[in-house]
Amino acid sequence: MTDVISPDSLIAELPDGMVVTDPDILGGYRQDRAFDPDAGTPLALVRPTTTAEVQTVVRWCAHHRVPLVTRGAGTSLSGGSTAVDGALVLSTEKMRGLVIDTATRTAVVQPGLFNAEVKAAAAAHGLWYPPDPSSFEICSIGGNVATNAGGLCCVKYGVTTDYVLGLEVVLADGRAMRLGGKQLKDSAGLPLTKLFVGSEGVLGIVTEVTLRLLPPQAPACTVVGSFASVHQASEAVLAITAQIRPAMLEFMDSVSINAVEDMLRMGLDRQAGALVVAQSDAPGPAGAAEVEIIERAFAEHGAAEVFATDDPQEGEAFTAARRAAIPAVEKLGSLLLEDVGVALPQLPALIDGVAAIASERRVMISVIAHAGDGNTHPLIVFDPADTDEHDRAQLAFGEIMDLAISLGGTITGEHGVGRLKKGWLPNQVGDDVMDLTATIKNALDPHGLLNPGVIL
Amino acid sequence: MTDVISPDSLIAELPDGMVVTDPDILGGYRQDRAFDPDAGTPLALVRPTTTAEVQTVVRWCAHHRVPLVTRGAGTSLSGGSTAVDGALVLSTEKMRGLVIDTATRTAVVQPGLFNAEVKAAAAAHGLWYPPDPSSFEICSIGGNVATNAGGLCCVKYGVTTDYVLGLEVVLADGRAMRLGGKQLKDSAGLPLTKLFVGSEGVLGIVTEVTLRLLPPQAPACTVVGSFASVHQASEAVLAITAQIRPAMLEFMDSVSINAVEDMLRMGLDRQAGALVVAQSDAPGPAGAAEVEIIERAFAEHGAAEVFATDDPQEGEAFTAARRAAIPAVEKLGSLLLEDVGVALPQLPALIDGVAAIASERRVMISVIAHAGDGNTHPLIVFDPADTDEHDRAQLAFGEIMDLAISLGGTITGEHGVGRLKKGWLPNQVGDDVMDLTATIKNALDPHGLLNPGVIL
Repeated sequence: MTDVISPDSLIAELPDGMVVTDPDILGGYRQDRAFDPDAGTPLALVRPTTTAEVQTVVRWCAHHRVPLVTRGAGTSLSGGSTAVDGALVLSTEKMRGLVIDTATRTAVVQPGLFNAEVKAAAAAHGLWYPPDPSSFEICSIGGNVATNAGGLCCVKYGVTTDYVLGLEVVLADGRAMRLGGKQLKDSAGLPLTKLFVGSEGVLGIVTEVTLRLLPPQAPACTVVGSFASVHQASEAVLAITAQIRPAMLEFMDSVSINAVEDMLRMGLDRQAGALVVAQSDAPGPAGAAEVEIIERAFAEHGAAEVFATDDPQEGEAFTAARRAAIPAVEKLGSLLLEDVGVALPQLPALIDGVAAIASERRVMISVIAHAGDGNTHPLIVFDPADTDEHDRAQLAFGEIMDLAISLGGTITGEHGVGRLKKGWLPNQVGDDVMDLTATIKNALDPHGLLNPGVIL
Repeated sequence: MTDVISPDSLIAELPDGMVVTDPDILGGYRQDRAFDPDAGTPLALVRPTTTAEVQTVVRWCAHHRVPLVTRGAGTSLSGGSTAVDGALVLSTEKMRGLVIDTATRTAVVQPGLFNAEVKAAAAAHGLWYPPDPSSFEICSIGGNVATNAGGLCCVKYGVTTDYVLGLEVVLADGRAMRLGGKQLKDSAGLPLTKLFVGSEGVLGIVTEVTLRLLPPQAPACTVVGSFASVHQASEAVLAITAQIRPAMLEFMDSVSINAVEDMLRMGLDRQAGALVVAQSDAPGPAGAAEVEIIERAFAEHGAAEVFATDDPQEGEAFTAARRAAIPAVEKLGSLLLEDVGVALPQLPALIDGVAAIASERRVMISVIAHAGDGNTHPLIVFDPADTDEHDRAQLAFGEIMDLAISLGGTITGEHGVGRLKKGWLPNQVGDDVMDLTATIKNALDPHGLLNPGVIL
């Protein structure tokens, strides 16, 4: 932009202190957890509390043609909330309303609440909000909706979109509208609620979410198997998914095992090539049968050790170890985070291909996975001060996405495309789908102001 | 249209016999099961077998600006596939390809297959396709996708959109594209797959569907309760859904009980004011606990009789009775079929309100329901030869939708808006949502050729 727009007129329209221009504070809103070094410098930060205030912000942006980057808790791993030069950053962090309705088993929440807060509020009423990204304690529900976030239990219980019954959204022209509601089934009109879940802030801003809650999950039994190699572990995963739908089926490689053990000191087997952590929450004899299937699959695919427990705290320790993998591996260097997924039978090929890329490019790649649904997180570790290694890491980053595409899979299972992966999206979906995407984006946001640079 | 377009050039482009202009045959493709007396007369019927042929048809329509009504098995209950004067009717009935992939647990199907055929093919491989509209033996998968069809088991297992992993669609300009795929999780780009499920043929034509399959359902236990009144029955339903998520929770009133009994002679209690049919498929003691909760809820809400069975054939007999309700009530006269839904706590108010409308308008209204998710089918019975009764039935039809809207619910839970309910859609969703709907429709189908008159 040639002219710098002054935020003064927006400041005047909103309560005191809601618009922030202090460069020190703005600095903390430039990047998300993808740590994009090319993050821009925003014009200002605005932290509204109500839908009406969001509408004021969006109308101001529309009038002045100022781009708008919406951010929840800033935990995007794909640069979905990275700031853009001259943009207004709208943080939903102060939109923290929540009402649990036990009669309809729904939660009506504003987008700034953490996932963990929604879970806790539901649990206080004897209900359960299933989606559980590993970052659930620090990621926002708004971000979960924007990326259609998954997690550990979604192998059995589905992803965010499966729990969104209704939305309030503010469109690019500032109009607010309600989509869906508390009714469990609704075929009235185009499925617009679904269109906004996973749209990464490029079609509108979600200001309220109506979430479906479930009766509490039954106590789970946890089975952990240690394997000599990641390949063996992935074969064991397939043997399980061919027979049952476990409540969790996760995977860690030796790099992540050791990084987590360095951090948590919980006694994980440092010699293991891979750990698979599975859970069954089927009740009674059905659960026992599932545990037996898991144990047998582990044994038949060469597990060195198999450990089963129905103690919830022991089970949670292993789940926590898996969730700690990204922050733990982050301590080894800078990360490029992948989120590639394939149809389950391709999982071993994906795992092997990632190892080949690591070897070819001489970079450390730690692989963790929501293995039960074929969604893996290869973590490329590099020293940012080592230019050559940085370049090789970047090459590997692209090659892993190319690999997933060549296996018929996806460049992102749950993190979204953001800014970091958009270069690969056309290769996955094709030019016609990109064109359809642009058609819808242009129809809803003709000036391209909402989260520019994401997806398209 | 002033000029009548000749289909000759289309006939020349497609295999012999694929385009039909015989008025006798066309007559059978004017109406669907909504039996709209205002159905138009199409220009021609085309029954393609491949995606490429569908593209040829769509391009021809685009070139000549001929409207295109796509139809599956013609079982729409809301006029979603009613023909329009001068339109080409595209029937998918000959698109019957099916591949079950046990490794990925998916079915790749063409849209013309019946739901029951997909279920049977999955079952032959030890797998399960859950969505089960009552019409599953005669409705097509393409129609199920177009309406986001539900059914009896969706109270626990979800609706069609929950099982659609991928689509092939032909857009209004004739381009074919693939959306999604066999991977279980995919956040790559806008959620376009979801946009087309439930879009009722107004955004594109679905030519292939990739469906997720599940391990087989565990054997279910069936509990049937008979009640003095529909109000009591609906209170019993709420008592159950407040505690558990049953595998089925259906409801029939005395009119439908007697109509079904007239047809099937299976020994239903003709004196009952309402029957509730519930199933639990939870295994072992968990299932026994659910059955106990259901039995207790029935008893506490005044059930005159409670019958429980774990015999699958006995259970299926009651399920079949519920599924037979619409065809059975249809024998009593012409029907106006409702599909209104509310959040569960509003169910008794909806039931009572429908009774009040029946009384006020002096028409017979039989109420059956997928009660467990608040989705009801009031069936308004009238004598088409009695003009006054017909008019009163039409008034009641609108008033029931008004009632659902006033209770915060939906005019259609699973049948779609079609042509018959579109007058009420703006009252439910509001002008801004209608405007957004039109924006998307116009962006994808600028000449308004795809299923004109549906939704908008």
